[in-house]
Amino acid sequence: MKKIINKTEDIVPEMISGLVKANSDLVKQIDGTTAVVRNDSKFAEEKQVGVVSGGGSGHEPLHAGYVGDGMLSAAVAGEVFTSPTPDQIYEAIKAVDHGLGVLLIVKNYSGDVMNFDMAKEMAEADDIKIKSIVVDDDISVENSEFTQGKRGVAGTVLVEKIVGAAARLGMNLDDLAALGQKVIDSTKTVGIALHAATVPAVGHPGFELGDDEIEYGIGIHNERGYSVEKIQPSKELAHELIKKIMGEFPDQTGNFAVLINGMGATPLMEQYIFANDVLNELAADNISVGFSKVGNQVTSLDMQGISLTIMKADDDWIKMLKEPVATIGW
Amino acid sequence: MKKIINKTEDIVPEMISGLVKANSDLVKQIDGTTAVVRNDSKFAEEKQVGVVSGGGSGHEPLHAGYVGDGMLSAAVAGEVFTSPTPDQIYEAIKAVDHGLGVLLIVKNYSGDVMNFDMAKEMAEADDIKIKSIVVDDDISVENSEFTQGKRGVAGTVLVEKIVGAAARLGMNLDDLAALGQKVIDSTKTVGIALHAATVPAVGHPGFELGDDEIEYGIGIHNERGYSVEKIQPSKELAHELIKKIMGEFPDQTGNFAVLINGMGATPLMEQYIFANDVLNELAADNISVGFSKVGNQVTSLDMQGISLTIMKADDDWIKMLKEPVATIGW
Repeated sequence: MKKIINKTEDIVPEMISGLVKANSDLVKQIDGTTAVVRNDSKFAEEKQVGVVSGGGSGHEPLHAGYVGDGMLSAAVAGEVFTSPTPDQIYEAIKAVDHGLGVLLIVKNYSGDVMNFDMAKEMAEADDIKIKSIVVDDDISVENSEFTQGKRGVAGTVLVEKIVGAAARLGMNLDDLAALGQKVIDSTKTVGIALHAATVPAVGHPGFELGDDEIEYGIGIHNERGYSVEKIQPSKELAHELIKKIMGEFPDQTGNFAVLINGMGATPLMEQYIFANDVLNELAADNISVGFSKVGNQVTSLDMQGISLTIMKADDDWIKMLKEPVATIGW
Repeated sequence: MKKIINKTEDIVPEMISGLVKANSDLVKQIDGTTAVVRNDSKFAEEKQVGVVSGGGSGHEPLHAGYVGDGMLSAAVAGEVFTSPTPDQIYEAIKAVDHGLGVLLIVKNYSGDVMNFDMAKEMAEADDIKIKSIVVDDDISVENSEFTQGKRGVAGTVLVEKIVGAAARLGMNLDDLAALGQKVIDSTKTVGIALHAATVPAVGHPGFELGDDEIEYGIGIHNERGYSVEKIQPSKELAHELIKKIMGEFPDQTGNFAVLINGMGATPLMEQYIFANDVLNELAADNISVGFSKVGNQVTSLDMQGISLTIMKADDDWIKMLKEPVATIGW
């Protein structure tokens, strides 16, 4: 394993410290935690529902890279592929509550759900109005190593973007939670790996694939998928993922949003070629795409691979996806 | 070699097509070329000097990812690691000339310099006011495989940002070229590879490094560097690069700008850890950092590695680096 790190146990604190130092006009760290909070000039006088997300590290720019005006109010980082602790989540909640309450956006992993729930109880005991929504956009497999139900993956960033935009527009906590749930229900993702991620403390890839093999349906923590196959041209990969995802949408009228997401070690060049194939096939199928985005958004350390997220999107959501934000990663 | 592509010969046109389709509110393609031009609403009525850059593909988001209000007017993509042709560059020049002239930003590779020069002559024959500047920020080696003099690498994006901001503010062509040259002279970069890039048509990495080896001073086309060493902790890597670069600045007072750049397959996690070490060491040395940025800006396909760029920056330049832009990649 060759990685640009110091000691394995210092990875997360050093990463957060680097991120905050390099972007101090946008974000600051809550002392003694790995929670990152907005630090822009608008934040202090802001009157909006706070939006907090977080999860294990190794998925950068998710989540700290989405902290900023129009997206998240705060993000909490756990150790690599490990949930953040309830007390750290609770500190983030307190830091962003302006009296209008806080919405938690949680990816569906047992550890995350449990720890965010505990933080929520701590906040409730403190009379903070608080709700949570759980993202489970990965339709590849029903249950998984760390999950009951479907996993939360790249679609999370679209949920954070729409919820963040609505919060900035002044939506109240109940409506925001309902909107977030509706967005989650309309968002479906499938990913492919060409090469598994190497967790630093482990030192070797999470699973092995042959020189000409890929795996469909992998998760963002090296969870296995639904099928190992010979690698295909990008067009065929796009076709397989589109077929699988669009099967989840009985009504294919109206607008859709598309996210092509790199898993960490896949260059933008390949992501754009894949995007070309995806957008061509959707156009040929008369699927209307109102928003599309390509890039490394929800990664899995140095995994080589890609995921496709498709959302059936109200026109309002398309508008909210396009709203400018001031974040590191969007 | 496992890559998400179709036919090798279609890589660049398909990549450009995907990039443009996914970002049609920002950019459009000039028919029959791989040149990408601004497509935002402000561009048509704009009165500013046009800024055109380009070069071989494989360095995404450079250059097409920096086309947009406040940065490049157009970018021209060659084949992988190959200069764009003069006629394509010429089409881009014509598309962005509003009568105030066009500045070309060229990376210092023999093929690029020659082809941009030919395009410049074509434009001059057409009575378009035109100047060019050549970026040679890589201080690792004096001459290289494809270069007379120093190579142009990640510092290019900072040059494009400052020149683009100044052009938007209405600076004339002569002053813009002089500013660009001054910025280039103040910008120094050194890169490290942990693993070389695989050019798709070649099918294997450009050079081999041992399981515990890194190479200092590599270029963005698999050009060899100045030394192969055992891998060190991030702190030591940061120290080596800072020492080498800061030796180029006899006057270390005033402000500096810092760019930590991922080479394509190195996760943001490692880039932030490295950034933390760089910013800590500069702070300990009382070097004032007025601007810093971390991410994949000027990549080399799937190379694993990182580069550090440091610029001695006027206060005006820091301001221009911080100006918001509407691009895919900044």
